[in-house]
Amino acid sequence: MLKTPKRKPAVGSPPLDHRPFLVKPGSNVRLKDYDPDHAGLFKNKKEAEAALSEDVKALAEAQELLFASDSYSILIIFQAMDAAGKDGAIKHVMSGVNPQGCQVFSYKQPSAEELDHDFLWRYNKGLPERGRIGIFNRSYYEEVLVVRVHPQILAAQRIPNLKKSPVVWRERFEDIRNYERHLHRNGTMIIKFFLNISREEQRQRFVARLSDQAKLWKFSTGDIAERGVWDSYMEAYEEMLGATSSDHAPWYIIPANKKGFARACVADVITSHIRRLGLKYPEVSPEKRHELLAIKRKLEAEGKGK
Amino acid sequence: MLKTPKRKPAVGSPPLDHRPFLVKPGSNVRLKDYDPDHAGLFKNKKEAEAALSEDVKALAEAQELLFASDSYSILIIFQAMDAAGKDGAIKHVMSGVNPQGCQVFSYKQPSAEELDHDFLWRYNKGLPERGRIGIFNRSYYEEVLVVRVHPQILAAQRIPNLKKSPVVWRERFEDIRNYERHLHRNGTMIIKFFLNISREEQRQRFVARLSDQAKLWKFSTGDIAERGVWDSYMEAYEEMLGATSSDHAPWYIIPANKKGFARACVADVITSHIRRLGLKYPEVSPEKRHELLAIKRKLEAEGKGK
Repeated sequence: MLKTPKRKPAVGSPPLDHRPFLVKPGSNVRLKDYDPDHAGLFKNKKEAEAALSEDVKALAEAQELLFASDSYSILIIFQAMDAAGKDGAIKHVMSGVNPQGCQVFSYKQPSAEELDHDFLWRYNKGLPERGRIGIFNRSYYEEVLVVRVHPQILAAQRIPNLKKSPVVWRERFEDIRNYERHLHRNGTMIIKFFLNISREEQRQRFVARLSDQAKLWKFSTGDIAERGVWDSYMEAYEEMLGATSSDHAPWYIIPANKKGFARACVADVITSHIRRLGLKYPEVSPEKRHELLAIKRKLEAEGKGK
Repeated sequence: MLKTPKRKPAVGSPPLDHRPFLVKPGSNVRLKDYDPDHAGLFKNKKEAEAALSEDVKALAEAQELLFASDSYSILIIFQAMDAAGKDGAIKHVMSGVNPQGCQVFSYKQPSAEELDHDFLWRYNKGLPERGRIGIFNRSYYEEVLVVRVHPQILAAQRIPNLKKSPVVWRERFEDIRNYERHLHRNGTMIIKFFLNISREEQRQRFVARLSDQAKLWKFSTGDIAERGVWDSYMEAYEEMLGATSSDHAPWYIIPANKKGFARACVADVITSHIRRLGLKYPEVSPEKRHELLAIKRKLEAEGKGK
């Protein structure tokens, strides 16, 4: 096991130093070492919003380049407990991005057809094309989270000769690692976010939602049931995060009690990952340039002739 | 044939009166009656941008309601000649919208598998789910446009006992009308935009693109070839617009020489169509309300007990 990194950025480091949130491959993650209240060096909400706004602009530019260079695709995965801010992060971080280069899939209950396939099958259909950013709001990681916490869901998948826990989970981690390596080898960059809120913060957000008459319809009584098995979820998350973070498909544990910080941080991580690809606008060959120049002259002449 | 409507809004009407651009079902469309330079009552670019900004905000709200009410889906179709501003309109009109509720499909060359199916098959896969806005950047209308202008494409579809022109096009119009009626009956609202630029405006935009070294790579020499058959396209568009505009799936001929006006107009048409649906946030039943209140009390007690 690798030593876990320091969680708090050193004083003087930029407010958005996200290195402390990166999960080292194979590390022994203990979520109580990660402070959900952490808000970087931002003094207030306004500072976080200003940073987000900068990052959203930078992300929009990075996505244009991604689209133009037409080589990589980016898969961004969001996992979290209810009310941790997945929807809000997706909305605020990606809203400035050209919708032509971005797609979001939200995974809920699988269909009967999907249950009749292996556990990765239904996610495969939603992978982003080259040049695009694809977002999974929940993902195949639910297959080692909700399915692990509720064994009856695993039973319903009716897998022949199913291994017992914990072997089945180790095998699923391995399948997921191999699947992500395959995607990486074929040009998909993967970035994974666990939005880390505290149980108390979730309680407050639920109460706030239940106090807002206009948002009552959004609340599902099922949301509350999962709170009862919070600790089981945290254990499942801890094992999953260490077992499936890799250099080419890293997990980030984003402090999410402060929405502004979480969003700015997510935007910053995505932008810096895309930048690291060193993408360039496509070059035009001398022959093509020559041909285009001839076309241009012809079009110009056409204008004078009218 | 119905009489074509007046093209110019009356003095004093709002700058974004888009009624003149609506194609009456079965009307005899003559594109020379539509002024591509029309810019409403906007005095300048700034005014159009301000209107667009208002409309984008309104559209973002309308989309939230669409998502919440989870009843209708919206299919928006863009068709136009190259450089008419489809990509720009999609980017600027939809950028403020939550990407979770919006998806864009760009249709290019069909695959071999797609060619082995009926001409609507590949578009069917991209239809938006309930609660979402789906955008087709080019669509099944190419099947009566580029396919009509270039008969060799039709031949490559290898349809047995294919009818001769013009019967084949009349049949395709009928198939499309029936397909759209089916979608309408099942909860998809369809809005269709033809971005109408002049041949001269296209020439100027091509020259501008060819003068910008950073954008040279974007230019395909194929784009220029279609200019040579401009009139054939206009004839195909005219017949298609009249034959496939309907009350539940209307075509709008948007003056597109002025980008700012075109974008503001598109945003305004979409927003006003969604508003006309009279959507409401879901209601919570008294029983559910009672249940949620009990949950809220329990959560509040939990907070005091800690």
